[in-house]
Amino acid sequence: MHRTKVRVVRNALDANDTIARANRADFDRAGVTVVNLMSSPGAGKTTLLEGALSGLGGVRAGVLEGDVRGSLDADRIAALHIPVAQIETDEGFGGECHLDANMVRSALPSVPLDELDLLVIENVGNLVCPAEFRVGEDLRVMIASVTEGEDKPLKYPLMFRACDLVIVNKIDLLPHLEFDLDKLLYHVEAVHPGVERLLVSARTGEGMEGVRDWLVRAAVRERVPA
Amino acid sequence: MHRTKVRVVRNALDANDTIARANRADFDRAGVTVVNLMSSPGAGKTTLLEGALSGLGGVRAGVLEGDVRGSLDADRIAALHIPVAQIETDEGFGGECHLDANMVRSALPSVPLDELDLLVIENVGNLVCPAEFRVGEDLRVMIASVTEGEDKPLKYPLMFRACDLVIVNKIDLLPHLEFDLDKLLYHVEAVHPGVERLLVSARTGEGMEGVRDWLVRAAVRERVPA
Repeated sequence: MHRTKVRVVRNALDANDTIARANRADFDRAGVTVVNLMSSPGAGKTTLLEGALSGLGGVRAGVLEGDVRGSLDADRIAALHIPVAQIETDEGFGGECHLDANMVRSALPSVPLDELDLLVIENVGNLVCPAEFRVGEDLRVMIASVTEGEDKPLKYPLMFRACDLVIVNKIDLLPHLEFDLDKLLYHVEAVHPGVERLLVSARTGEGMEGVRDWLVRAAVRERVPA
Repeated sequence: MHRTKVRVVRNALDANDTIARANRADFDRAGVTVVNLMSSPGAGKTTLLEGALSGLGGVRAGVLEGDVRGSLDADRIAALHIPVAQIETDEGFGGECHLDANMVRSALPSVPLDELDLLVIENVGNLVCPAEFRVGEDLRVMIASVTEGEDKPLKYPLMFRACDLVIVNKIDLLPHLEFDLDKLLYHVEAVHPGVERLLVSARTGEGMEGVRDWLVRAAVRERVPA
């Protein structure tokens, strides 16, 4: 039975990669850079996007929101007049704990790709499964909140290894926590040597200029086809 | 293809329930109350157990630790001389984002059930999938950290609905957050009317007496067979 399960998982991942490549081809045709944004529940993905996407200069940004249930996050982004589409994994997808390439594909008709330079896909809050499913993105970003403890890279290594940028959020809370920032960064470096890191507080705005710069560079860089 | 997937998931859940009943029968025979403890990554499950399990009077407690990778949490519990066994979901289970009944069953030979009154199973940090898999437990407890925002019950309703107790942790940080505790409790009540709630800071110890009382009552209550 265990072997069967492994085979089912492998087939599902292969099918996912095929659809991810189709998504990527559509993104490339439209000239959109796509960022897959991942974190634990409540690490601050939506707050970060609220702060980052309004100040991107000439870069036209849109958001695809993944959530198990509800449109709370999509409503927050829409309030900023940023184009947003929503995937609810509870409806038709069985309450999945991650986005996969097929879910993203099913939402693409609602995303005005030709009017965008940058599309951020906000994944379901989860430090495990989202890292296993490519959705056709160019880049992967994860947010680690300082309230989650220094040990998370060691406990969820795939997520920290799979991403191109680690954003350490909620640094305004550091004076109120028993949290060793150097220890977190040491653990990040141990599981993903050389990965880019940004320290921010999405709430106070500290360090957010760096996030905006990173996103602008991602949107205008010479894009490598899939 | 979508239908096939749903069927595979149903079969897996049925098999899980069969094994969960076998686990429960073993727990009942040994007279152990089993608590399935769930939360986001970094919400404070291990810190809460460190604070709660040392002060349970005559109740003999043990822990079964689930983690994707590493034995950091198990080591912390073992340091308190509390019997602890570990399931690493990365090895042999494909890096699962939750514990299922079969993983728990495979670890039972390492758990001295006959010497325990209470076994706490610390699940993988995740607000989605752990709620879908019974492991044979009597009671389910979830921890919501105030750093995660007030909207989590609306976004992860199954987790909040599936549990018998909601522990709201890290209340020592309330003065430093823009967080409306009443709003969180209102949302908890909306998705799970009448569910018991405890407000605590596992770090400062505030409210932890209530957690210990709850666990002692759980361990000595008249147990209802599965």
